[in-house]
Amino acid sequence: MGSLSRGPRAQSCWEQKFGAPRQGALAPDARGLLRLELRDGLDAEHATDGLEGYSHIWLIWLCSLNGHQATNSKVRVPRLRGGRAGIFATRTPFRPNPIGLSLVRLDRIDGATLHLSGIDLVNGTPVIDIKPYVPWYDAPRPLAGEQPPLGGVRVPSWVPGAESLRLEVSFTSAAEEALSLHSNHNSTRLLEGEALKSTLRQSLEADPRPLYRWRRQQSGKESVAEYELQVDGMLASCRFERNCDGSENVVVTSVARLTS
Amino acid sequence: MGSLSRGPRAQSCWEQKFGAPRQGALAPDARGLLRLELRDGLDAEHATDGLEGYSHIWLIWLCSLNGHQATNSKVRVPRLRGGRAGIFATRTPFRPNPIGLSLVRLDRIDGATLHLSGIDLVNGTPVIDIKPYVPWYDAPRPLAGEQPPLGGVRVPSWVPGAESLRLEVSFTSAAEEALSLHSNHNSTRLLEGEALKSTLRQSLEADPRPLYRWRRQQSGKESVAEYELQVDGMLASCRFERNCDGSENVVVTSVARLTS
Repeated sequence: MGSLSRGPRAQSCWEQKFGAPRQGALAPDARGLLRLELRDGLDAEHATDGLEGYSHIWLIWLCSLNGHQATNSKVRVPRLRGGRAGIFATRTPFRPNPIGLSLVRLDRIDGATLHLSGIDLVNGTPVIDIKPYVPWYDAPRPLAGEQPPLGGVRVPSWVPGAESLRLEVSFTSAAEEALSLHSNHNSTRLLEGEALKSTLRQSLEADPRPLYRWRRQQSGKESVAEYELQVDGMLASCRFERNCDGSENVVVTSVARLTS
Repeated sequence: MGSLSRGPRAQSCWEQKFGAPRQGALAPDARGLLRLELRDGLDAEHATDGLEGYSHIWLIWLCSLNGHQATNSKVRVPRLRGGRAGIFATRTPFRPNPIGLSLVRLDRIDGATLHLSGIDLVNGTPVIDIKPYVPWYDAPRPLAGEQPPLGGVRVPSWVPGAESLRLEVSFTSAAEEALSLHSNHNSTRLLEGEALKSTLRQSLEADPRPLYRWRRQQSGKESVAEYELQVDGMLASCRFERNCDGSENVVVTSVARLTS
């Protein structure tokens, strides 16, 4: 056993790991496409018949950017700023079997192409299964005496919730200008109109910095925290700033078209 | 790519496919165990550190009872009584990549053993990944203007909901007696006390009959609808009866210890 067909590669506005949100829910405006190509004997349009009736689907995918399986039983948790938890207590892509699970919104189906939003997959990620989201099966049901909607659901205190702190994001006027030019001249990309700006904001609000660089900055080893983020064919430069009260914010300083 | 380590095999009260519910949510009293054995270099107790803080987990597993991958793009849907839908619009185990996804309750962790309830896996199913359930990521979030808890979530009308019709289940006095004897002399099985009876009831309420046999009975080709169901070391015999008004009910006629 153990052999899987690789499945179609997702097209996504996330061009690289940095900036892609930890889960799709963190960037609801992010967009992607999945063009199904199935093995001989299977027909993609038949295989998705009825799927258009669902608003949300699960993607099960391969953590293909890792290059290797887990070599440690624990990983550092971004939200714990270095605290560690067991690999099975987190969604880390470094797992014994490097498989990812993402809930995404299914906007529409066009032939054999699924149009998705709220996606966290990096462009080119192989998707190995698609399942419909069925609330009755996929959301915990309260036991007798528990209150819905989340009666009886428990997560550890270090897991970020809806109320989780988000960084404040602002744009320089140069960046604003470049974004509005892009939205006017962009008919072939995944993010149309204002969606590039809001997707960029959603990515930065959730603080995509890798832990080791965040630590270098906190400890003063790295004075300027400039990052570059690729989204949907654009390169955004941004700067993480530390406020007097210890809180942080992000400024998008420039946005330019990626030349490939 | 494509090679996965098989992962631990789940122990489950469901001894065979027949009777195992279509999803764990349908039989909340069903019980199972997962004894983790990880590859060299990984430690199961470290890998689950922090997992005890979650009430629910995802199991990603291999549909190992099929023996083959999907050869058709559509499958017959039990609830449609023969109507068909695309494989990706259903949770059928006959998929291009035969991978299953189940939400189960994590009752407790004992060393490297996870104690689970609300399980739909058949005994011996290989589990390839475990992920914590995080409501913020794993339940669709309402968009602006939609009402929680399920604002904006859409499923096709043929998908069973909470209000879905369930068969009425009764027990003969012989079956009742055998079940109470079992619950008094059962300290080594997964279902203790009243749990065997309630699990049996939950399985039958959801109508586990395969479609082709249901049809034979409807068409009069099969007059007596007797079924045997194995749960947690017990063999239950049951009879599906048709009422005057066309509705159906199930009677558990006898329960006996499985001799292996």
